Amino acid sequence: MASVLRSLSGPTDLRRLGDAELTELATEIRQLLLESVAANGGHLGPNLGVVELTIALHRVFESPRDRIVWDTGHQSYVHKMLTGRADGFATLRQEGGLSGYPSRSESDHDWVENSHASTSLSYADGLARAYQLQGRDDHVVAVIGDGALTGGMAWEAINNIAADPHRRVVIVVNDNGRSYTPTVGGLANKLTEIRTNPRYEPTLTAIRERLTSGHRIGEVAYEALHAVKKGVKDALAPQGMFEDLGIKYIGPVDGHDRTAMEQALLAAKRFGGPVLVHAITTKGQGYDIAVANENDQMHQSHPFDLATGEATTVAPAGWTSVFRDEIVRIADERPDVVGITAAMLYPVGLDAFADKFPDRVFDVGIAEQHAVTSAAGLAMGGLHPVVAVYATFLNRAFDQVLLDVALHRCGVTFVLDRAGVTGDDGASHNGMWDLSLLQLVPGLHLAAPRDGGQLRELLREAVAIDDAPSVVRFAKGAVGPDIEAVDRVGTIDVLRRDAAADVLFVGVGPLAQVALDAADHLAVDGVASTVVDPRWVKPLDPAITDLARRHRIVVTVEDNGRQGGVGATVAQTLHDAGVSVPVRIHGITQEFLDHAKRGVILERLGLTPDAVASDTRSALSGLDTGNTQQG
Amino acid sequence: MASVLRSLSGPTDLRRLGDAELTELATEIRQLLLESVAANGGHLGPNLGVVELTIALHRVFESPRDRIVWDTGHQSYVHKMLTGRADGFATLRQEGGLSGYPSRSESDHDWVENSHASTSLSYADGLARAYQLQGRDDHVVAVIGDGALTGGMAWEAINNIAADPHRRVVIVVNDNGRSYTPTVGGLANKLTEIRTNPRYEPTLTAIRERLTSGHRIGEVAYEALHAVKKGVKDALAPQGMFEDLGIKYIGPVDGHDRTAMEQALLAAKRFGGPVLVHAITTKGQGYDIAVANENDQMHQSHPFDLATGEATTVAPAGWTSVFRDEIVRIADERPDVVGITAAMLYPVGLDAFADKFPDRVFDVGIAEQHAVTSAAGLAMGGLHPVVAVYATFLNRAFDQVLLDVALHRCGVTFVLDRAGVTGDDGASHNGMWDLSLLQLVPGLHLAAPRDGGQLRELLREAVAIDDAPSVVRFAKGAVGPDIEAVDRVGTIDVLRRDAAADVLFVGVGPLAQVALDAADHLAVDGVASTVVDPRWVKPLDPAITDLARRHRIVVTVEDNGRQGGVGATVAQTLHDAGVSVPVRIHGITQEFLDHAKRGVILERLGLTPDAVASDTRSALSGLDTGNTQQG
Repeated sequence: MASVLRSLSGPTDLRRLGDAELTELATEIRQLLLESVAANGGHLGPNLGVVELTIALHRVFESPRDRIVWDTGHQSYVHKMLTGRADGFATLRQEGGLSGYPSRSESDHDWVENSHASTSLSYADGLARAYQLQGRDDHVVAVIGDGALTGGMAWEAINNIAADPHRRVVIVVNDNGRSYTPTVGGLANKLTEIRTNPRYEPTLTAIRERLTSGHRIGEVAYEALHAVKKGVKDALAPQGMFEDLGIKYIGPVDGHDRTAMEQALLAAKRFGGPVLVHAITTKGQGYDIAVANENDQMHQSHPFDLATGEATTVAPAGWTSVFRDEIVRIADERPDVVGITAAMLYPVGLDAFADKFPDRVFDVGIAEQHAVTSAAGLAMGGLHPVVAVYATFLNRAFDQVLLDVALHRCGVTFVLDRAGVTGDDGASHNGMWDLSLLQLVPGLHLAAPRDGGQLRELLREAVAIDDAPSVVRFAKGAVGPDIEAVDRVGTIDVLRRDAAADVLFVGVGPLAQVALDAADHLAVDGVASTVVDPRWVKPLDPAITDLARRHRIVVTVEDNGRQGGVGATVAQTLHDAGVSVPVRIHGITQEFLDHAKRGVILERLGLTPDAVASDTRSALSGLDTGNTQQG
Repeated sequence: MASVLRSLSGPTDLRRLGDAELTELATEIRQLLLESVAANGGHLGPNLGVVELTIALHRVFESPRDRIVWDTGHQSYVHKMLTGRADGFATLRQEGGLSGYPSRSESDHDWVENSHASTSLSYADGLARAYQLQGRDDHVVAVIGDGALTGGMAWEAINNIAADPHRRVVIVVNDNGRSYTPTVGGLANKLTEIRTNPRYEPTLTAIRERLTSGHRIGEVAYEALHAVKKGVKDALAPQGMFEDLGIKYIGPVDGHDRTAMEQALLAAKRFGGPVLVHAITTKGQGYDIAVANENDQMHQSHPFDLATGEATTVAPAGWTSVFRDEIVRIADERPDVVGITAAMLYPVGLDAFADKFPDRVFDVGIAEQHAVTSAAGLAMGGLHPVVAVYATFLNRAFDQVLLDVALHRCGVTFVLDRAGVTGDDGASHNGMWDLSLLQLVPGLHLAAPRDGGQLRELLREAVAIDDAPSVVRFAKGAVGPDIEAVDRVGTIDVLRRDAAADVLFVGVGPLAQVALDAADHLAVDGVASTVVDPRWVKPLDPAITDLARRHRIVVTVEDNGRQGGVGATVAQTLHDAGVSVPVRIHGITQEFLDHAKRGVILERLGLTPDAVASDTRSALSGLDTGNTQQG
């Protein structure tokens, strides 16, 4: 097996390695990255791009005393390997195995688990302020991609870090020109100008020569870089963005030249104030198939064949692809419909729309707040925007949905992909908040389709609403077969209607299938059920009250937190209407979920037909004996 | 009365006025601003600062065809006067009277009602994109303060606006160097450098001379400004921040020189792409007492005496001042406690803390996201941050509270001022969401003190929690007398305990007094009550279950949305525990509230002792007859 990598007990060991060993180490790391992701899936392109950068970081800084904060933790695989976790990669993203993100329970070298973008600079600013106040000289390093710099939080943090010449934060910009797709915006244009400037290569060479021609490492590094940079900075450096604000700029540095990276980081470490190292890297570096992948350089990959880069399992058609196709049909019919993505054109399925109508799909960068409020502006300007985003990321723009869109009664449709339990990507990727959050927004319409057919139908109903925000939320992954309704009452679909039913199941979205299966289980025991899918979970059709009245118990099943979600709303609606039928709410306990497969987590949460049926049975017998306690 | 102002039927009339009349108009506007705010209270300093800027805007652009979007609408008073609403100022901020913010129901010239900061550029980007797509040549103007530029949304928008050389957005930066207090951060430092540069005044003079020496207005304006600017821009302009990104920069312009402003705006109007006009203004201009007010230039004022600037009514000691005093005492005892404000040092009451320990209170700018996540960083660095913010503004950072603080179990205390119904400032200032939002956050502790004594006690309990976020939320304005408890059960205070009580009132925060008064009303009819204040509304003390079990009905009263708030949580807790006592939830219907006094709104919402008692009476008789319907 890999010999240099396995010989390391921790990052301090890195400092005793010579050039040849370090080069071998980089090769071994890339090999392990490729093997692990090919076997288990995971983030490939970003990690291949930071091999040398990460080695350099751990040689220059003394983690964990010096704190390294990774923005969007999916770029931390190499860091994990260098901090004693290389062996864990066999279990990457498996239940109980190595997390795909930094994890404090795994290692003292990990600080931040949240994988929403653009947070690292704020953490770093807080840490550095704390050390400043306590007179501690520990270093704080934040590694952030050019994509994450498009997020507003990063700007708020830069503005703060820059304000104090003694705030010792080292910002490493890992500039690969990509978010998923190419990074957009004014800053990205400027960075591209640098990357593609014919003077960039000669400059790097000049820096390298100065630094490797016998000077003692570190002592002269800063001066050298500074001097060289001064000569070219008007042409190359985004000094406006950073130096005008008060942040020392070092770069651009070839992020795959470990020596150059070390020199730049050493200079930054010694600077004693806010400083930014601009590293230019290539996403997928070292694996040509990834580099050549134009969509996303294999940003996040399913298990694949190393020789060809082809996925080894064919994923069944998923929710996203149903949306992808239907939104194109809608766009064909309605020229006022436009699409907005926050740097995730392909993952949210707006790519086909963009291919067909390139002028009508906008990528705003990793900038959910702007995505939402600019959508309000688009609506005021006479268009109907469809903002497609992962459910968990809409949390970033709750205030904008509430006040910029809903208060102004703008016709904006939000399409929430990866809603509910997503599993593999850990706590911060589960979309288990939206059904509760969005219930708070006055006037908003919220739909949870149970299948592909309903997604198409509800998307069309949503886009037809022009005087209020509308939301369609669906799950990650494969979509099951369509479930036929036997009747529709108001907006509510009746999926099963037994004679003289005791139980009214309310199944939300794809959990309607769980409700149906639970009803099957109960039928075996002779318990009769009605199963409905409300389709629109806000506003709830008032018909739910009459339906409930005709049953002994209401059982709700949803893929969202129990607090304030659909079940809670059904209960409150019934209670307000004076209907005293007990409501049993099945959803996610209000806790952060560890990473595991979606099915495993649903099982653990009791969101399975067996568990729901069994709970319903005891509730019914409790009603018979006058005891309705719920665990 | 004011003759020029009253002669205007709309902004088009402005274009026929000569210099002398325009000068007179400015004087009349200032007079009306002073009289109105002196009588009714409102935003004074910001509006005095934009008189000439607003006149110039309405002379150069053709509202409402051209769209003018005001960031933080409190700077729109002059705009209101120029768009036919001067007469309405007698009713400023009164129920049914003129809103203190833009209002679409008042005028076609108003577009954006939300008064949370930093949104205008996103709206403008959306509007301009929509016009671009539709081939319309309407102009879009956003007026934004230097303070609002510290918000991340503004950066997200700038990055987008700058990306397209054909995006026709005119950004007017109203740079008065102030948020409430002086604007902070790297950008602010740069802007201050410009304002205080000795070359600024001569430059402005040179521009003025060029522009007013016989050239035709507009034709040469852009070239002139551009040429002058080119000569001085290295010294003066923040070209890095804007031009490097791709936004044309015009300025700095003296915002009180109407002619210079018009020239700059004309140049911007003709530019045909993203362009920024940097106007330098003085908050409070024209009223020396405001200019001289060092705290906030009379940013927002209570009714006051024009001759002295002194408030005409003495506001009773409020919640904020209780917090202000107690946090200093805590800071005295605990050197690890630090304070964070998002540009509102005085309004949130961190000023005394900052006076005593200037190194330990941080103003991060109008940047709630950064406030929250940098607090997580501070906590990881060994400190205990207290983030003091208006309740409504925490919505901006829900994701950061959830994932950056709570997921990482950071000991951060949030102090939410102006929670509940605030009234005068309209829909976007009511803090009616926090009790629902924060219930969603795993592990978070949430307290709602009923009085000053409880605020002090709960603040101390909150700051003692070092492994999870804690929140203390309180209302706007005067705090009533302390309410003694007769007992404490777990964390729950029992405020009244009648023998053989039928009703359990759960009063949340200051609404505990409403519950007590309602119990008094019922006692007159011979109905006995228990009244409790849970103090910690998350987690709810399980003792609530036993308490509820011993009553026929539970009645909750809170100053928050009914959806997912404390009442809903009590109901769900009881239901999960199998306690079938009916729960009647009194709170705010899930709707946006029009502006009016807090008392008037509470009355309208039925959050008064009378209304609560009367509803409880009918619920009790409903129980007797088997009908529990709630309206």
